[in-house]
Amino acid sequence: MPESLAGREVLVTGGLGFIGSNLVIQLVERGAKVTVLDRVSGEFGGRVDNLRDVSRAVAIVDGDVRNEAVLQELLPGKEVVFWLAAQVSHPLSMSDPLTDVDVNLRSQLQMLEVCRRKAPTAKIVSTSTRQVYGRTTQHPVSESHPTSPVDVNGISKLAAEHCYRLYSEVYGLRTISFRLTNTYGPGMDLRSPGRGFINACLSQALHGDPVTLFGTGEQTRDFTFVDDVVDALLLASVQKSDFGRTYNLSGPSPCSLKQFVMTLNQYLPVTVRTVPFPDERLAIDVGNYWGDSTAWHQRTGWRANTKLEDGLKRTVEYFLSHRECWEHSNVSSVPAKTDGRVR
Amino acid sequence: MPESLAGREVLVTGGLGFIGSNLVIQLVERGAKVTVLDRVSGEFGGRVDNLRDVSRAVAIVDGDVRNEAVLQELLPGKEVVFWLAAQVSHPLSMSDPLTDVDVNLRSQLQMLEVCRRKAPTAKIVSTSTRQVYGRTTQHPVSESHPTSPVDVNGISKLAAEHCYRLYSEVYGLRTISFRLTNTYGPGMDLRSPGRGFINACLSQALHGDPVTLFGTGEQTRDFTFVDDVVDALLLASVQKSDFGRTYNLSGPSPCSLKQFVMTLNQYLPVTVRTVPFPDERLAIDVGNYWGDSTAWHQRTGWRANTKLEDGLKRTVEYFLSHRECWEHSNVSSVPAKTDGRVR
Repeated sequence: MPESLAGREVLVTGGLGFIGSNLVIQLVERGAKVTVLDRVSGEFGGRVDNLRDVSRAVAIVDGDVRNEAVLQELLPGKEVVFWLAAQVSHPLSMSDPLTDVDVNLRSQLQMLEVCRRKAPTAKIVSTSTRQVYGRTTQHPVSESHPTSPVDVNGISKLAAEHCYRLYSEVYGLRTISFRLTNTYGPGMDLRSPGRGFINACLSQALHGDPVTLFGTGEQTRDFTFVDDVVDALLLASVQKSDFGRTYNLSGPSPCSLKQFVMTLNQYLPVTVRTVPFPDERLAIDVGNYWGDSTAWHQRTGWRANTKLEDGLKRTVEYFLSHRECWEHSNVSSVPAKTDGRVR
Repeated sequence: MPESLAGREVLVTGGLGFIGSNLVIQLVERGAKVTVLDRVSGEFGGRVDNLRDVSRAVAIVDGDVRNEAVLQELLPGKEVVFWLAAQVSHPLSMSDPLTDVDVNLRSQLQMLEVCRRKAPTAKIVSTSTRQVYGRTTQHPVSESHPTSPVDVNGISKLAAEHCYRLYSEVYGLRTISFRLTNTYGPGMDLRSPGRGFINACLSQALHGDPVTLFGTGEQTRDFTFVDDVVDALLLASVQKSDFGRTYNLSGPSPCSLKQFVMTLNQYLPVTVRTVPFPDERLAIDVGNYWGDSTAWHQRTGWRANTKLEDGLKRTVEYFLSHRECWEHSNVSSVPAKTDGRVR
């Protein structure tokens, strides 16, 4: 795979974010010419810090993916587009649903429109969410499971998946999408609220606070280490046919929230506080989830190789040596005003 | 049913359009206090003409459903909301996909947000499209058939359906949605391009031009007379429980495009011109379609009672006595600027 990305012009939206920055680091190691489009600050902003080790090798554009002019400027000439920019908070998608639609659907449709005119042969790799399934009825969940999202985030992402499929079918765009499940690892955003269980749990444990479990903590999840997700994204970018499809990416094995906390306890002292499910969270909770990645495995041989204990060990080590990523209070959410190049 | 709507405060978006105006006429007959929100002119505008017989009994607001301020003004106090405003052209949804998302998804989400805060007990009845199914694999098509829209219009409408379901589940809003198939009848828009087979066919026949059939004309469709659709919408507005669901509304029996033309020929002389399917239409054509309305029938007893010959007879009679609705060339598509009350 490395030779396939060397020298390639690659755009990563959301490249300052958690998964995006891990991807960018791998792309730089493989010799790709990487441009990152992200908000350098602001409510959906990533962290320039996340690219501290590779920032000299990357062009970072401080811009909003909702701004069509930025897409018009950046997309022509790109050979690979990784679309990782997203409004990722499920609760926020309910309190501000229109922003969710704008960021998670409208901006991607805008990008597809620009690509079909100005970058029609680019590989386009995008990330969706297991949330598109809603409350699942059979496990493991394969891609053919019915979709019935339980929040606006899932609705926007599902509609975006349909757009990627449609633009592949109608215009021949080379799209591949992934439904991610709970992803963890170095570079996670531990400072913004509403980012889900793993983020809250790690942040609480690092601060020495009790970890909060809603309900019994027996809910099953499917935890995927970020390097495994990045491997899948890189594999997608070098596919040569069979575009327009969406694949699950799942972890090595299902695991309860309680087990997650117990595993974390091997590397960080953790105390647990169980509280009843808050009503507004219960309304959008999907219950147990465990996905089936057979389709992507059969296509590419990919597997989630990183066991939870190994992934959590590396995650804790990262955050203990980067205390600035979690020690202070939440970042301000003043939106950035500029759309100009930072570097 | 009549007594249930008498005196009720009702909002109909798209009430100057084809189905909307037929609905408004029935609502007025039933004594409802009707407000119509529509564009009086412009690219998505309806025709004030369509309400010529009831205009004194209706408040018509010339506004854009994408304008949140208009929704904030009109929704409080409404007991029933019929959301029929739409960008209805499938080809246009491909040439201008972002407008389709704004009109067919974003505006409805905005309405749901206003309703949950300011009209939480209103009945909300909305129309979607069989296009959400995409290319269907088994007939008749029931609501559990997989959804895989083949144009942006179908993607937006499917996402909107999910929003109606979600807002019913999470906030208890009283929503019911319908997937319409090819609807015909008095008040159809015969002057705007891209409105589908029936519109083009009727317009050509009325002008004495040959009717154009793409391909063999053997494609099966499911033609529904507008009065039957209006009956279903009215029934939905008086339901008292079991909200959040989406139902197919289908015609009395499946019928090929050729049969449709032959039936029309009983009332208007028709000559047929067959042409190969244009590529850009083939890309978004769904093949045969015949829907199954059993779920709505079982819930309410509704059936599509109007046979094609009866419906077409009434449609032709209407247009022959309203030549102004089709004799001139297409209306201009200069968008209206105002959001003020016309009457």
